[in-house]
Amino acid sequence: MNNNLLKDNETLDDLQLKGLCIIQKKDAFRFGVDAVLLANFARVKRGARVIDLCSGTGIVPFILSGKTQAGKIIGIEIQKDMVEMSIRTVKFNNMENIIEFVNRDLKDLNYLKSIPKADVVTVNPPYKLKGSGIINSKEKNAIARHEICCELEDVIRAAKTVLRDNGKFYMIHRPDRMADIICTMRQHGIEPKFIRMVQPSVNKAPNMLLIEGQNNGGRFLKWGVPVYIRELDGSYSKEIDEIYGR
Amino acid sequence: MNNNLLKDNETLDDLQLKGLCIIQKKDAFRFGVDAVLLANFARVKRGARVIDLCSGTGIVPFILSGKTQAGKIIGIEIQKDMVEMSIRTVKFNNMENIIEFVNRDLKDLNYLKSIPKADVVTVNPPYKLKGSGIINSKEKNAIARHEICCELEDVIRAAKTVLRDNGKFYMIHRPDRMADIICTMRQHGIEPKFIRMVQPSVNKAPNMLLIEGQNNGGRFLKWGVPVYIRELDGSYSKEIDEIYGR
Repeated sequence: MNNNLLKDNETLDDLQLKGLCIIQKKDAFRFGVDAVLLANFARVKRGARVIDLCSGTGIVPFILSGKTQAGKIIGIEIQKDMVEMSIRTVKFNNMENIIEFVNRDLKDLNYLKSIPKADVVTVNPPYKLKGSGIINSKEKNAIARHEICCELEDVIRAAKTVLRDNGKFYMIHRPDRMADIICTMRQHGIEPKFIRMVQPSVNKAPNMLLIEGQNNGGRFLKWGVPVYIRELDGSYSKEIDEIYGR
Repeated sequence: MNNNLLKDNETLDDLQLKGLCIIQKKDAFRFGVDAVLLANFARVKRGARVIDLCSGTGIVPFILSGKTQAGKIIGIEIQKDMVEMSIRTVKFNNMENIIEFVNRDLKDLNYLKSIPKADVVTVNPPYKLKGSGIINSKEKNAIARHEICCELEDVIRAAKTVLRDNGKFYMIHRPDRMADIICTMRQHGIEPKFIRMVQPSVNKAPNMLLIEGQNNGGRFLKWGVPVYIRELDGSYSKEIDEIYGR
């Protein structure tokens, strides 16, 4: 193991996917099932150019590099230390010819306009899964909404800016934001084309949604069978086991 | 049985609900699970004033009269012969003090503005369930879409016109129109508040959706567990059996 790539407060985690590993911080956001679902939801053709927004540790690009024949995957992330870390993960996996990370703000539209267009955009934006309950204080609620709303529109505007005509947009988000997501996508000319809700199990309401959009796409929205994370007995579903390669 | 209320080409069907029956034409549209789901989805408080748009045979008002404590339910239907028939059903069930049907076009906004505001609007609009597959001909597709789109916006505009402030809107529709539904509702100030997808079974994609909106409501969209029509063995699910009172 090339341990000089790893810092003290970091772990090296095996993705159980073609020998790929990922460096993560012990005390910071660590990838969850949402990133894995998103990377498995995105349809990426051979040679495609992919841009992953809000890239974080780079988990989505690394899974995509293992699951698809993407030609180039660029992760854009605003946090400098995360980009520095994900670049070390690229080196560790010897993926320099496929994956690249850049430390940029997705609100920097001039930068986004300056780079080659993408066939596919993926994004797992920073929504707070733990705060998915109803916020009681109206003030808190309004502030949270306002912040989230801005971020969502920033994300969709960034996707619109980098996508080629008819390019695909893949996002995982929270169902309670569905109306905002759909209306904002349409407002920016990214037509919703395919949705899969994600449910903890068949008898629980969805707590995530996977949405595919198409830049300047025609109006037809297809729905898939929901992703059920667990069986009623608490074990992981067959689909989740397959996604994790178990 | 008061048979002079029934014409030759009609049947009298038992709703299995507090002795209620409904007159339907043998050769015309007969109510399906969608109307039953909608009537069970709508939350109607004691004494509430309900307006049912695209009322058809009046199935939704009749189920609501059996399942809720609504004060008044008005069905609005454009087809004169359907209204004439549903008025006979009212007489048959001795429901004249609760249910009323009027032969009006929901695009007649002057009429809608002239009547007292409703606490609740229900609508099972004329979407073609049988045509839910992808239409191959682009021309056909465009025409179908255009027609449907107009009707959807007419329905939502009519609901907006008759709803009191904060009044509730309940609709069953097709998932492939979700983006149109949500965007058109928002455009007319009816905020999506609650959605339940309807799936033929857990392993099939949704083919209907139940949506609750609120006139001038705040932005928070809750999701329920999907309605599964059948178990994997083909028998009706417990929820459907309960709805049908079996």
